[in-house]
Amino acid sequence: MIGFAVVGYGYWGPNLVRNISETTRADVVSVCDRDGSRLDGVRGRYPSVKTTTDFEEVLRDPKVDAIAIATPVSSHFRLAMQALMAGKHVFVEKPMAATAEEASRMVEEALRRRLVLAVDHTFVHTGAVRKMRELVDSGLGDMYYYDSVRVNLGLFQHDVSVIWDLAVHDLSILDYVLPEKPVAVSAIGMSHVTGEPENIAYLTLFFESKMIAHIHVNWLAPVKVRRTLVGGSSKMIVYDDLEPSEKIKIYDKGITMNGNTHAGYGEKVHQMLVGYRSGDMYAPRLDMTEALKHELNEFIDCIEQNERPIADGLAGLRVVRVLEAATRSLAQRGRVIELEEMRRIA
Amino acid sequence: MIGFAVVGYGYWGPNLVRNISETTRADVVSVCDRDGSRLDGVRGRYPSVKTTTDFEEVLRDPKVDAIAIATPVSSHFRLAMQALMAGKHVFVEKPMAATAEEASRMVEEALRRRLVLAVDHTFVHTGAVRKMRELVDSGLGDMYYYDSVRVNLGLFQHDVSVIWDLAVHDLSILDYVLPEKPVAVSAIGMSHVTGEPENIAYLTLFFESKMIAHIHVNWLAPVKVRRTLVGGSSKMIVYDDLEPSEKIKIYDKGITMNGNTHAGYGEKVHQMLVGYRSGDMYAPRLDMTEALKHELNEFIDCIEQNERPIADGLAGLRVVRVLEAATRSLAQRGRVIELEEMRRIA
Amino acid sequence: MIGFAVVGYGYWGPNLVRNISETTRADVVSVCDRDGSRLDGVRGRYPSVKTTTDFEEVLRDPKVDAIAIATPVSSHFRLAMQALMAGKHVFVEKPMAATAEEASRMVEEALRRRLVLAVDHTFVHTGAVRKMRELVDSGLGDMYYYDSVRVNLGLFQHDVSVIWDLAVHDLSILDYVLPEKPVAVSAIGMSHVTGEPENIAYLTLFFESKMIAHIHVNWLAPVKVRRTLVGGSSKMIVYDDLEPSEKIKIYDKGITMNGNTHAGYGEKVHQMLVGYRSGDMYAPRLDMTEALKHELNEFIDCIEQNERPIADGLAGLRVVRVLEAATRSLAQRGRVIELEEMRRIA
Amino acid sequence: MIGFAVVGYGYWGPNLVRNISETTRADVVSVCDRDGSRLDGVRGRYPSVKTTTDFEEVLRDPKVDAIAIATPVSSHFRLAMQALMAGKHVFVEKPMAATAEEASRMVEEALRRRLVLAVDHTFVHTGAVRKMRELVDSGLGDMYYYDSVRVNLGLFQHDVSVIWDLAVHDLSILDYVLPEKPVAVSAIGMSHVTGEPENIAYLTLFFESKMIAHIHVNWLAPVKVRRTLVGGSSKMIVYDDLEPSEKIKIYDKGITMNGNTHAGYGEKVHQMLVGYRSGDMYAPRLDMTEALKHELNEFIDCIEQNERPIADGLAGLRVVRVLEAATRSLAQRGRVIELEEMRRIA
Repeated sequence: MIGFAVVGYGYWGPNLVRNISETTRADVVSVCDRDGSRLDGVRGRYPSVKTTTDFEEVLRDPKVDAIAIATPVSSHFRLAMQALMAGKHVFVEKPMAATAEEASRMVEEALRRRLVLAVDHTFVHTGAVRKMRELVDSGLGDMYYYDSVRVNLGLFQHDVSVIWDLAVHDLSILDYVLPEKPVAVSAIGMSHVTGEPENIAYLTLFFESKMIAHIHVNWLAPVKVRRTLVGGSSKMIVYDDLEPSEKIKIYDKGITMNGNTHAGYGEKVHQMLVGYRSGDMYAPRLDMTEALKHELNEFIDCIEQNERPIADGLAGLRVVRVLEAATRSLAQRGRVIELEEMRRIA
Repeated sequence: MIGFAVVGYGYWGPNLVRNISETTRADVVSVCDRDGSRLDGVRGRYPSVKTTTDFEEVLRDPKVDAIAIATPVSSHFRLAMQALMAGKHVFVEKPMAATAEEASRMVEEALRRRLVLAVDHTFVHTGAVRKMRELVDSGLGDMYYYDSVRVNLGLFQHDVSVIWDLAVHDLSILDYVLPEKPVAVSAIGMSHVTGEPENIAYLTLFFESKMIAHIHVNWLAPVKVRRTLVGGSSKMIVYDDLEPSEKIKIYDKGITMNGNTHAGYGEKVHQMLVGYRSGDMYAPRLDMTEALKHELNEFIDCIEQNERPIADGLAGLRVVRVLEAATRSLAQRGRVIELEEMRRIA
Repeated sequence: MIGFAVVGYGYWGPNLVRNISETTRADVVSVCDRDGSRLDGVRGRYPSVKTTTDFEEVLRDPKVDAIAIATPVSSHFRLAMQALMAGKHVFVEKPMAATAEEASRMVEEALRRRLVLAVDHTFVHTGAVRKMRELVDSGLGDMYYYDSVRVNLGLFQHDVSVIWDLAVHDLSILDYVLPEKPVAVSAIGMSHVTGEPENIAYLTLFFESKMIAHIHVNWLAPVKVRRTLVGGSSKMIVYDDLEPSEKIKIYDKGITMNGNTHAGYGEKVHQMLVGYRSGDMYAPRLDMTEALKHELNEFIDCIEQNERPIADGLAGLRVVRVLEAATRSLAQRGRVIELEEMRRIA
Repeated sequence: MIGFAVVGYGYWGPNLVRNISETTRADVVSVCDRDGSRLDGVRGRYPSVKTTTDFEEVLRDPKVDAIAIATPVSSHFRLAMQALMAGKHVFVEKPMAATAEEASRMVEEALRRRLVLAVDHTFVHTGAVRKMRELVDSGLGDMYYYDSVRVNLGLFQHDVSVIWDLAVHDLSILDYVLPEKPVAVSAIGMSHVTGEPENIAYLTLFFESKMIAHIHVNWLAPVKVRRTLVGGSSKMIVYDDLEPSEKIKIYDKGITMNGNTHAGYGEKVHQMLVGYRSGDMYAPRLDMTEALKHELNEFIDCIEQNERPIADGLAGLRVVRVLEAATRSLAQRGRVIELEEMRRIA
């Protein structure tokens, strides 16, 4: 039985408390929030859970084995480091930290103390994204592109751009789904409110191969869209997260290249060498378990068996590194930032 | 009664012949194609129309007042210049020419000879795009963004990238709809077939104002998408060209800024100043006249009344200039190309 | 402050308890269920609420002003009558009772004791249905038809047919939205599992006017559909309850009749007299308050101000009367049952 | 080479002439229409085709082997009989005739003279409906229901109700797809224009088995819908004819019955015996050949090889018989009409 403390009881904290309460393998020992008024909700719903505004109290509590951090990103580093130094396992909201430097130190601290450090990349625990990884592993052929549109009329944030709020989801999905990691990033965006961060942005990720990834995020769109096209040499996917059940559609469509395209026969002959294939479509049944439930079970497994979660600190670090590079690119109208360069700077 | 010759009887030529035949204000005098076998189709359907493989014959024919050019882009300049020099009005497919230099000389030639030079920017003659212009003129408020997705499993072309094939539509729409012209361009793309031009590309257009335009074009997508989001400070539009009738939806949605956002009251106060508005949606009835019919009538009007068409040679030139800059950017992983710089080079 | 008891803590009971808890105008005093194991959930979440398996205890409790009944339909009559006789106001699930006779006696009992009797016709408290009523009142013109499709792969019930489970929603909507009441009913259906009630059914309601209503309900459909077409002489509505926000779309479409259609000019002239109108579409912003919250507030208002709720006992009775007639028709392959005849029999 | 005459050059005639012209196995010899002005269109487009307003001339022409009849239904019988008696094969629009009596005599005449009599049940020649038949033959299991919605703002007809105009499509599909024929019919409808036939109608077809078919047709709907749900014991289909490519979707969904449902264990045990299955969805690639082309080729095959077309006179007769029974039922508010009874009357 793992004892949990949840720090931060704003938007996401209640989901954590509910999911931990619902599993038989863990207990919510305490909930901590600097804003005491938020804790009333906890006391009403979960009378047996301790509440506190003092994080030190949580750190001292021997019943607390693991701390779930659901506070604003600027505080992740400080809270997670304190938790790790107090010997607690850590489950931290995405993005993992405000800088790659911070994320990197969190990874080292967890490693040194042999504690589990998990980053809450929720989407990689959905049935849809897990199916997508399966398909990328075998079925799609060579990867050509990943194109995501993630837009809606969303809450403007004042400390970070739309990239840190929305593109982080796609970056975590890409990190999990693709065998290959990006080598460079470009980002273009615009702020439509004076003094505020960018509310619309376009990210491009470059890879060693011919793969290209592109992400459109927007807080100021008239309709909600959550739609990703994934192109492979053998098959293609449409992943629409707003579809109630058929979220993943696999198309047996594409081109086939025949003969020697280097032969220089001239345009006409050349043209005949590209064949078009248009076959069946297929929407597999997906595991509909709530992602957070799946994720917390994996975190508990990792604590009990001393293993590494799918979205471990290194995954979180890789995502923050891309966010940092994208932010730099954004300030220079899309100048391509090599991720190796980022690593050297860090 | 305007006498027309149509040059090029491949994909688009038959549509031109049919539409000209159907109007009572013009006649198809002759159809010309270097590939004589294509002309059989004309003789079967339009027995009274002359057919020829010899363009000189068309130029000499006094019954031909105007020449419609529907050949590959590489031949537009030569054919149009000959036509103008023979005193014929010209209606030329988009893109208008292979280079801005060519387009520029065509514009000058037409001007010098007081002939009408129209570019077949078909979309600007649809009811949907005309309605969009109306809304941009009054209703949307300040323009924030234009985001277009134009993808499908499309015929690979071997001489030009997907930008010249598909993005040209959006560039012509933007040229018509927006009061402001772009000042710089960036384009990123990828070719997934060795030796072939880019089959997927992302274009960004920068403006003096906070407006940003972005265009995703792709010949290798599993589904057909023709969807544009247009964001303004007062209203927003979804333009979906695949909808049978409700192609334009206008959303009374957005944010409202209250008070002095420069006051530096700190985050909390600041946050209250952004208000969210979510009102009605409205899909106006659109004129469903075939765009090409509308366009040819306008061309005939211009000939008869010595006026300039909406999509005149200068519009065609502006679009080619962006295509050229985008192609240059594409070769440099999205380096931003200033359009002023393009003009100076040209 | 109104004290509530909730009887029945299966599927719907928890929603009642949550909504009553969230209002400041009422308290959940106790929850009662014959199956004691269900009450564990109440104790965990709401430690201050009394739980019991004994309905008599609820009836005796002076803190209980009103009883919400969320048990199977067969027990509604007995529980509601006991509650009314104990002087409690009653809020009862739909369908209100198993027979019109029962419903009728409940209405009389409430009337005699001047107690509020509300039937939980949830849909009539949604923003969408309230907007629909507004439109029927002024805007649609003469009512022509109401056509609803309400199908999905649904839980088979063993005591009642799909009509009592699904069509009851449309009957409650019709009762609220239309000024006119049906005069006759026909129902056709089929059971595809031996010994089970009908899992697919088609109901038709006849009116004095030219209005016709038709309802398709089905527990064995491959996709979920909740779509209603409403036709009027001036405008038409599509109401799609699965749309996230644009649930109501109003079409300015229809026919216009010109001139004297009785003149007998023969077919040709006659045909010219029917004009087709196809105008704008409009999706009004809807109140998105949770229906049950709206409904409970209205119930509390009625108790405090001694008024009648929108869905009172008589509304519940009218719906049960149609269900009874439909069930009779179902057994006779759609024989038309006059509702007057039903009333006389009752 | 089969010589064709096309009689009737209104809405459908031009499609027939175009398709016959495009095949290499047949020639359009002549086109006949009582309204001579319509023939101008033929002369412009097909200068080698004879045109006439005199049907007798067509009958006498020895070059005419087959006559395609695309006139109003009231004239089908007279024209087809004359054609057959003149020794011509006949291809007649649907519905085949105005009464079952007429249809029956046409069948006999064709049989006696060993001529091919085909009815233009266009839909049964689409890739979608042919795939549906394949699935019904093997894959769907026992047939449970066929539910079609075929509505739009359509042209009001003055001589026949919406059933003869729209439901005829579904009746021809059912006749082709199902191994079983209907035994009884019920139809309910309404006319919203005084003196005009019904513009909205609901048809139900009963079968010996537990199969039920239901068809909703409407000329006064705000949106166009062409959607059919087909339920079987093993799989279910959604057939949406407005989808550009995925017209047929096959769902591996349904219920499974376990154990002895007659055992009378009481409700609780009973409930456990119904299992729900929700699996993959699959959209097979369809043959996209134009249906009319497929159909005319089959008609020519039948003439050349002396065979019977899929939609022969008997299929046409069966459909007319159902239409006649439905019309009778319509006049009696849905009284169930046994088809055997119809046959005896006829």
